[in-house]
Amino acid sequence: MTRPSGRAADTLRDISITTGFARHAEGSALIRVGHTEVLCTASVEGRVPGFLRGQGQGWVTAEYGMLPRATHKRGDREAARGKQGGRTLEIQRLIGRSLRAVVDRRAMGEMSVTIDCDVLNADGGTRCAAITGGWVALHLAFAKLVSLRALPANPLTGQVAAVSCGLVARDDSGPEAVLDLDYAEDSAAIADANFVLTDAGAIVEIQASAEGAPFAPDAFARLHELARSGMEGLFAAQRRAIGVEV
Amino acid sequence: MTRPSGRAADTLRDISITTGFARHAEGSALIRVGHTEVLCTASVEGRVPGFLRGQGQGWVTAEYGMLPRATHKRGDREAARGKQGGRTLEIQRLIGRSLRAVVDRRAMGEMSVTIDCDVLNADGGTRCAAITGGWVALHLAFAKLVSLRALPANPLTGQVAAVSCGLVARDDSGPEAVLDLDYAEDSAAIADANFVLTDAGAIVEIQASAEGAPFAPDAFARLHELARSGMEGLFAAQRRAIGVEV
Amino acid sequence: MTRPSGRAADTLRDISITTGFARHAEGSALIRVGHTEVLCTASVEGRVPGFLRGQGQGWVTAEYGMLPRATHKRGDREAARGKQGGRTLEIQRLIGRSLRAVVDRRAMGEMSVTIDCDVLNADGGTRCAAITGGWVALHLAFAKLVSLRALPANPLTGQVAAVSCGLVARDDSGPEAVLDLDYAEDSAAIADANFVLTDAGAIVEIQASAEGAPFAPDAFARLHELARSGMEGLFAAQRRAIGVEV
Amino acid sequence: MTRPSGRAADTLRDISITTGFARHAEGSALIRVGHTEVLCTASVEGRVPGFLRGQGQGWVTAEYGMLPRATHKRGDREAARGKQGGRTLEIQRLIGRSLRAVVDRRAMGEMSVTIDCDVLNADGGTRCAAITGGWVALHLAFAKLVSLRALPANPLTGQVAAVSCGLVARDDSGPEAVLDLDYAEDSAAIADANFVLTDAGAIVEIQASAEGAPFAPDAFARLHELARSGMEGLFAAQRRAIGVEV
Amino acid sequence: MTRPSGRAADTLRDISITTGFARHAEGSALIRVGHTEVLCTASVEGRVPGFLRGQGQGWVTAEYGMLPRATHKRGDREAARGKQGGRTLEIQRLIGRSLRAVVDRRAMGEMSVTIDCDVLNADGGTRCAAITGGWVALHLAFAKLVSLRALPANPLTGQVAAVSCGLVARDDSGPEAVLDLDYAEDSAAIADANFVLTDAGAIVEIQASAEGAPFAPDAFARLHELARSGMEGLFAAQRRAIGVEV
Amino acid sequence: MTRPSGRAADTLRDISITTGFARHAEGSALIRVGHTEVLCTASVEGRVPGFLRGQGQGWVTAEYGMLPRATHKRGDREAARGKQGGRTLEIQRLIGRSLRAVVDRRAMGEMSVTIDCDVLNADGGTRCAAITGGWVALHLAFAKLVSLRALPANPLTGQVAAVSCGLVARDDSGPEAVLDLDYAEDSAAIADANFVLTDAGAIVEIQASAEGAPFAPDAFARLHELARSGMEGLFAAQRRAIGVEV
Repeated sequence: MTRPSGRAADTLRDISITTGFARHAEGSALIRVGHTEVLCTASVEGRVPGFLRGQGQGWVTAEYGMLPRATHKRGDREAARGKQGGRTLEIQRLIGRSLRAVVDRRAMGEMSVTIDCDVLNADGGTRCAAITGGWVALHLAFAKLVSLRALPANPLTGQVAAVSCGLVARDDSGPEAVLDLDYAEDSAAIADANFVLTDAGAIVEIQASAEGAPFAPDAFARLHELARSGMEGLFAAQRRAIGVEV
Repeated sequence: MTRPSGRAADTLRDISITTGFARHAEGSALIRVGHTEVLCTASVEGRVPGFLRGQGQGWVTAEYGMLPRATHKRGDREAARGKQGGRTLEIQRLIGRSLRAVVDRRAMGEMSVTIDCDVLNADGGTRCAAITGGWVALHLAFAKLVSLRALPANPLTGQVAAVSCGLVARDDSGPEAVLDLDYAEDSAAIADANFVLTDAGAIVEIQASAEGAPFAPDAFARLHELARSGMEGLFAAQRRAIGVEV
Repeated sequence: MTRPSGRAADTLRDISITTGFARHAEGSALIRVGHTEVLCTASVEGRVPGFLRGQGQGWVTAEYGMLPRATHKRGDREAARGKQGGRTLEIQRLIGRSLRAVVDRRAMGEMSVTIDCDVLNADGGTRCAAITGGWVALHLAFAKLVSLRALPANPLTGQVAAVSCGLVARDDSGPEAVLDLDYAEDSAAIADANFVLTDAGAIVEIQASAEGAPFAPDAFARLHELARSGMEGLFAAQRRAIGVEV
Repeated sequence: MTRPSGRAADTLRDISITTGFARHAEGSALIRVGHTEVLCTASVEGRVPGFLRGQGQGWVTAEYGMLPRATHKRGDREAARGKQGGRTLEIQRLIGRSLRAVVDRRAMGEMSVTIDCDVLNADGGTRCAAITGGWVALHLAFAKLVSLRALPANPLTGQVAAVSCGLVARDDSGPEAVLDLDYAEDSAAIADANFVLTDAGAIVEIQASAEGAPFAPDAFARLHELARSGMEGLFAAQRRAIGVEV
Repeated sequence: MTRPSGRAADTLRDISITTGFARHAEGSALIRVGHTEVLCTASVEGRVPGFLRGQGQGWVTAEYGMLPRATHKRGDREAARGKQGGRTLEIQRLIGRSLRAVVDRRAMGEMSVTIDCDVLNADGGTRCAAITGGWVALHLAFAKLVSLRALPANPLTGQVAAVSCGLVARDDSGPEAVLDLDYAEDSAAIADANFVLTDAGAIVEIQASAEGAPFAPDAFARLHELARSGMEGLFAAQRRAIGVEV
Repeated sequence: MTRPSGRAADTLRDISITTGFARHAEGSALIRVGHTEVLCTASVEGRVPGFLRGQGQGWVTAEYGMLPRATHKRGDREAARGKQGGRTLEIQRLIGRSLRAVVDRRAMGEMSVTIDCDVLNADGGTRCAAITGGWVALHLAFAKLVSLRALPANPLTGQVAAVSCGLVARDDSGPEAVLDLDYAEDSAAIADANFVLTDAGAIVEIQASAEGAPFAPDAFARLHELARSGMEGLFAAQRRAIGVEV
């Protein structure tokens, strides 16, 4: 059976990463995954939050936002509502943890990098795109600091990227596992899962959630396998964006 | 090697669930998992949120809080700070999703149940205890509605409970997977994962996170297996609490 | 005539105070006055608020909260609403003033103690129970500091406790003054008054309020007398809780 | 011994009440008690809050504010801080309760009156001045509705006014009870008490508070007596303001 | 054709400025322009905001508020709503900029003056009255500092005042430009403009806005001319208020 | 003398407007004015705010935001700070008023259009770019409604666009008036002014502000003239964007 997009079950959407879109940021990446579009910027500051002061290590954190009309129906502007919603906070905490997992924070010294991920167009998978693009922005910012001799070497210990998988209902048989859901699939999925993985094949974060009924362990195993198979496309796009042949 | 608590790697902490602690709630469960203690109450209201009105189905949601001195060091009271933190919002969203996964919401009719989970003493695993205890409070509230003939039958489709597992460093060998982390283990773990599973063995939610370095897929598999092995103790405690021999 | 609870007009509800419920706090008391149940914890911090810095004296303050389903009808969680209500602020200010009245703040040195009073079950008189139980938590925290030689002596200058009295309508005659109102009486009272008194018989705070029509001065005098007569039961419970025969 | 103001212990400050200062309000009173100056306005609205709808009775409520520079040292503007402080909320709740105690709310029908009390100059006793002046604004608004035939009769059942008393230290003897404290006395008092009383001699509210050490019951009795003796001056000023010889 | 107030097109409303109304402020001016009444106070603090620290210059800022019943219909109290509205923020930013334009901030040294402008009665033109009266309060505060030898000379470089003009529809011909709109004219105007000018004839701020349809450049020129012609009345009132014959 | 950008005093920056960038919006325009880049979207909703209900006319409003790293130095995210700043509110009110000035709101019927203007890159003149680009988004949304026969005709009555001018210091002579300031010029200007004008040459809004010293009326006249001369470039860009040869 076919997916709404016509893709095979294990096919990623087209991905492109444009660097330098944000003129002022130390690093920036405008990532497009299908019709999802996220602007990721890295901002460097020469100090760390209070809880880390004097410990000789750096900090990497993230903030996430969605433009009001990035979606089918306009959403309230969080600044106007006076607070960030639970979904926003959850996502930005995930992005921050994911990026810190591949940073040698001692090698940073006492500096902070804030990765802002703002969704310009949403078509599913925005948090995964933010992680994948956020890594590029972070890499560029570190590389700039190295070129300015503010850092001896890039403190990144590897690549990290993320992709979603989901179980979608099929009439003729049981649910099918598919890679990289767009909005149409995501909103109809029985279950979805986000996998944040490194280029060394290690796990940074897994979040799997039954949207409708609970699902079987072997279905989860298929999702996990599918995610692993799809990562290389993301890592390659990251490497192209930073102009490195690792 | 031994754990701080002296437990074997696959041993749960002692668990007890006391019902009826909250005198006014339609259902309540004070759950103790080791030294972690969470008061879960279920409050029924005869209407649903706006987005569900007129659709003939019910709603189950959750709120989570921690008393300021449930922890080693007093935390700010969220009501005084004027907002719930990201961790709080993330946890209460997880509890709500987890419980809804075993509710037939059409069978509820247009009513809402709010599960409040307030941590009186924290020693690791509060979100898992909240899910396990919250299910009991929800069951009792539904049972009360059945006894009052406000519902024809209990809309729960099964049991749901949660447990954490983690990877802890061992000097002599690689990291070891252990079940049901207390605070001492949790704060030193390389990775931890929360598994929300049903008594039928299905997955409701998995959240696994590298605290330090990313971890290998087979380590994740060990965590998953350990969680599955430990669930029966939680389901049995739930059944004892509701006085049912299922 | 009889009261809903069957008590005589000058009879307190059963009172019990359990210490040590909160495992991490420097002092804690779970006080039960009839069906009202308040968890009081004392948290010590080695510094004072800005307005006291450098003056060689300490600070004692209080915060008050009510679990959403401590009451017949679930109340909004103040953390979710984004602010503490007027009633909450008024009560926590009262608790703080009441406890400070029996503390020699110069003898504390520059340290702070925060008394958190969280209502687990509400059946009238929660602010009075919070003061009575809060004193026990505060005493235990100071005693712990003395035992650790962080303080030379307990800075408390006496006991403080609180009780409510009210005027309730009687068919056959004028209103009757009764001691220690439960929720049923409180919500029907013509007037109620909270008396915060010391074991030396002195007044710390009196708050009397006409709920319906204004009331006569001699009715107030009866309330005042009733309160004084009931205090010894509270002071004795406090002394039992701290294990002292004063 | 003499008071800072040179007044005798039982002498009120000069009091004047100017009506009509607020051009748009249904009733307004600018009350001056010594150097304390509060603008009280009454605003009528033809509906009641949700919790009263359909019950055939009205509502009277109050809000209180202090201009930032009403005091010796400029205070933060509460609108800029984003919330009303505990003191503000406590005072406005007191004003509202005090005024409602002399209103026949059934005779109002389903309408609301909001009394805004804004302190233009503060020199002690602002909450008492707000109650005394607020009653005048309320009376005028009701009288206007009567003159417009929107109400058949004024729903006020009597006068209500408020005064503070306090215990101040005297070198030669014990503390002395004095009437109507100004700021200099208030900030040095051992205890202070606010009495809200009706012209029929009944009690609406008593709030007595030890500022330093707890105080004896007979000292409280002296304060109470002093307050009663001083009320007539306030009631007379109210009557003059509304142009009535009752 | 006549204006609602019967004034000629180029006639200001009556203006009076009373100083010293706020007893505690370093400078204060109660300005009345027709029925509009604004209390302006100047509060001096011996330090500057963080962004100016160590630069050897001072700061002047303003806050604006409106009492809830300054208007025909009671407005929400901003402190109760928990935030200042856009109109309030816009006006107070304007007042601050306007006053700073005539202050030699280097001559102030590192001190701050906050001008609070609170509208007691509103009948149009409150922001202009606040600027005109705020200048008087600021002058008086500086003069007081000079008299106390805290400043060698008054850092004001001139006078600043403000007036509104507007285009109002006339049946018989095109719209007519009129000076100093009251509320009745303001709410019906086709366009209105606020001019903030100095006594040397220079421009500090111009804000012109089409309320209905866009208006022609020559209409704007007439408004500008009218404003210039009306300023002398305001500057004279300021000079009388400060008792100076400049 | 030359400007930092090398432009002549009366030369606009390069301007481009890309439509359709926001996939979901009824109309969208990504406007670039030099290095300033603002994404404007129009969102249609089939109802009006409460104050307009039942009056048979529509509403157009605007919201404005700036991505945290649109600027040289990262700014706080307003959603995280919990409120929109005064500058933001002031700008979005200006945008809304400006667009409404060229809309026949009766011709809209009871519908609302919200124009979201989010600054992706800031280099001066963001509010002007937002107005110029917002008009395009609004036009496209209305045109779409016309093509869907939801509106009989486009309710726009003309074009509106905005440009800034400023006075910059020149060593050799007096200040020079220049058109369309970029950030470098804006931050050094003596005065700046924003002109919102229609294609018919009428004035919608003028905001002129002395940044340093007050400025002379004839300098203002030069700014006004310069603005008028530059508008045609903006109107032409708008017409190209909507594909119309008017």
